[in-house]
Amino acid sequence: MITVLTGGTGGAKFVDGLRQIVRPEDLTIIVNTGDDLLWWGLYVSPDLDSIAYMLAGKLSQERGWGVKSDTFFCLHAMGQLGQPTWFHAGDRDLATHVFRSKLLADGKTLSEATAEIASRLGIKARVLPMSDSRVETRVLTPAGDLSFEEYFVQRWYQDPVESVRFAGASDAEPAPGVIEAIRSADLVLLAPSNPVTSIAPILAVPGIREALRESRARIAAVSPIVGGAAVTGPAGTLMAAQGFAVSIAGVADFYQDFLDLLVVDSEDAPAAEELRKTGMRVHCTPTIMRKYEDRIALAKSALDAAMQPPSAQDAVERP
Amino acid sequence: MITVLTGGTGGAKFVDGLRQIVRPEDLTIIVNTGDDLLWWGLYVSPDLDSIAYMLAGKLSQERGWGVKSDTFFCLHAMGQLGQPTWFHAGDRDLATHVFRSKLLADGKTLSEATAEIASRLGIKARVLPMSDSRVETRVLTPAGDLSFEEYFVQRWYQDPVESVRFAGASDAEPAPGVIEAIRSADLVLLAPSNPVTSIAPILAVPGIREALRESRARIAAVSPIVGGAAVTGPAGTLMAAQGFAVSIAGVADFYQDFLDLLVVDSEDAPAAEELRKTGMRVHCTPTIMRKYEDRIALAKSALDAAMQPPSAQDAVERP
Repeated sequence: MITVLTGGTGGAKFVDGLRQIVRPEDLTIIVNTGDDLLWWGLYVSPDLDSIAYMLAGKLSQERGWGVKSDTFFCLHAMGQLGQPTWFHAGDRDLATHVFRSKLLADGKTLSEATAEIASRLGIKARVLPMSDSRVETRVLTPAGDLSFEEYFVQRWYQDPVESVRFAGASDAEPAPGVIEAIRSADLVLLAPSNPVTSIAPILAVPGIREALRESRARIAAVSPIVGGAAVTGPAGTLMAAQGFAVSIAGVADFYQDFLDLLVVDSEDAPAAEELRKTGMRVHCTPTIMRKYEDRIALAKSALDAAMQPPSAQDAVERP
Repeated sequence: MITVLTGGTGGAKFVDGLRQIVRPEDLTIIVNTGDDLLWWGLYVSPDLDSIAYMLAGKLSQERGWGVKSDTFFCLHAMGQLGQPTWFHAGDRDLATHVFRSKLLADGKTLSEATAEIASRLGIKARVLPMSDSRVETRVLTPAGDLSFEEYFVQRWYQDPVESVRFAGASDAEPAPGVIEAIRSADLVLLAPSNPVTSIAPILAVPGIREALRESRARIAAVSPIVGGAAVTGPAGTLMAAQGFAVSIAGVADFYQDFLDLLVVDSEDAPAAEELRKTGMRVHCTPTIMRKYEDRIALAKSALDAAMQPPSAQDAVERP
């Protein structure tokens, strides 16, 4: 049994690789919901949607978000009605938002709505939101206290970041099944997602970090930092803003209280050598997923390394 | 000042003709909301939408409802999610439903939401829902107690009709401006809409029928019945179910307590002659709106006849 913690585009790609080599019945995916937003009054969960579309084979590979070949006629009409259009909800994508909003308005929890959508899309892996409560990632910048999507999509993550917080986290509970999925897994994988805004919101839900610390599962993370910078997006800026080094050492620090293995890019082999001196197991392998095959190779390499006995910890693969 | 009571496709066509010959500032349109429905959890008001799209030049002329050249990608995706698809909400049309639903969820009344949508679409005529309260046209059939859209759209008005009622009407109030628009008008026009399910719901809102009876305005109706049958749709079936003759005399009966003039099709000239013997003013003119010019001609003819002094009441135009 494998449990994955994920959010964002890198996470969805990693999950895509993993699902090619693991039976879907053996896969539980715990997804960040800190980016969720009310858009045009509809409840939108960008990371749950990306994972669901990826697992259903519907994700736009070109864009990395939304439904493939989607159109934007409703968006255009909303613009004509004077409504904001910076969050690009496509016409097919909108069906998910409308359906989820209806389920929530009917009194379903976000977990129940997520399970219903996954079932309708024919998804066999288990997809869980991190929490059924509203936990909102807020990014404090000189331009104001922004939601993550305002910071990331509307303003192209150009603002200097003063701090990041997870509003509502202290009162939130893990969604049903989350703690159990961490405790009972053989392996917990942290996808190469932004540690600050994809993984940290999950860890901020009371009980989840403790479950990781106490889990009997091996716990491995794939570093989204390669060569001292994020592969994509604002992970570097945000890690620095949170006082972490923008390096694989910074990623190790982020997860140090529960991590058994850090999977890093082969480019970081020298830094990996340094990191091993602190006692951290580090596995080097190509982590940048340009092609479809890269996803499978990374998932396989991470899985193999994580399941090896600790004595083999210093094995270094080279491309 | 002209106030129009309307609903449905025939009503929208008539309003289209009227707006070509009357300044929009002089036009108030009171619209049936008995057909309103929650569709995928969104508040949809088919008659308000048809009027708004018509006035904005966006109505699909081919279909008679929805936005011209609209696509149905969201509808298709909703079908894939296992949701009903019999009500054909297009992608551009959906923007109106999403926007209105958001305005209502934000605490706006239906009147306020209607005014906001009209303003965004550049509509200068005043569009009012009959009421801000929920009044639901229910059609009792052997197949069950159906909403109007279930009866009309989902089941193609094939069910025998036992009765029609307007749930919630007795507790409803006319929307702000409705009574005033009837009382202060020079002319009130009842569009050639289905008397039972487009006009009767408006008349069922307490105070509206009384305002028509007491108004100083001339009140004229255009008959949707031509040659003993409805021009389109189930008006004939429904009038019969309500105990009215399916004829211009039946239409006159429907409105007898406040009507000054009935505009009927030239084809009904003999029946008009009979009807005049009861004391009703009747004006004969071509009423079937096949072409765009027909709409303008009918609006002009109805307007001229209504504003003529009563002594000219027997004027009969022939095509």
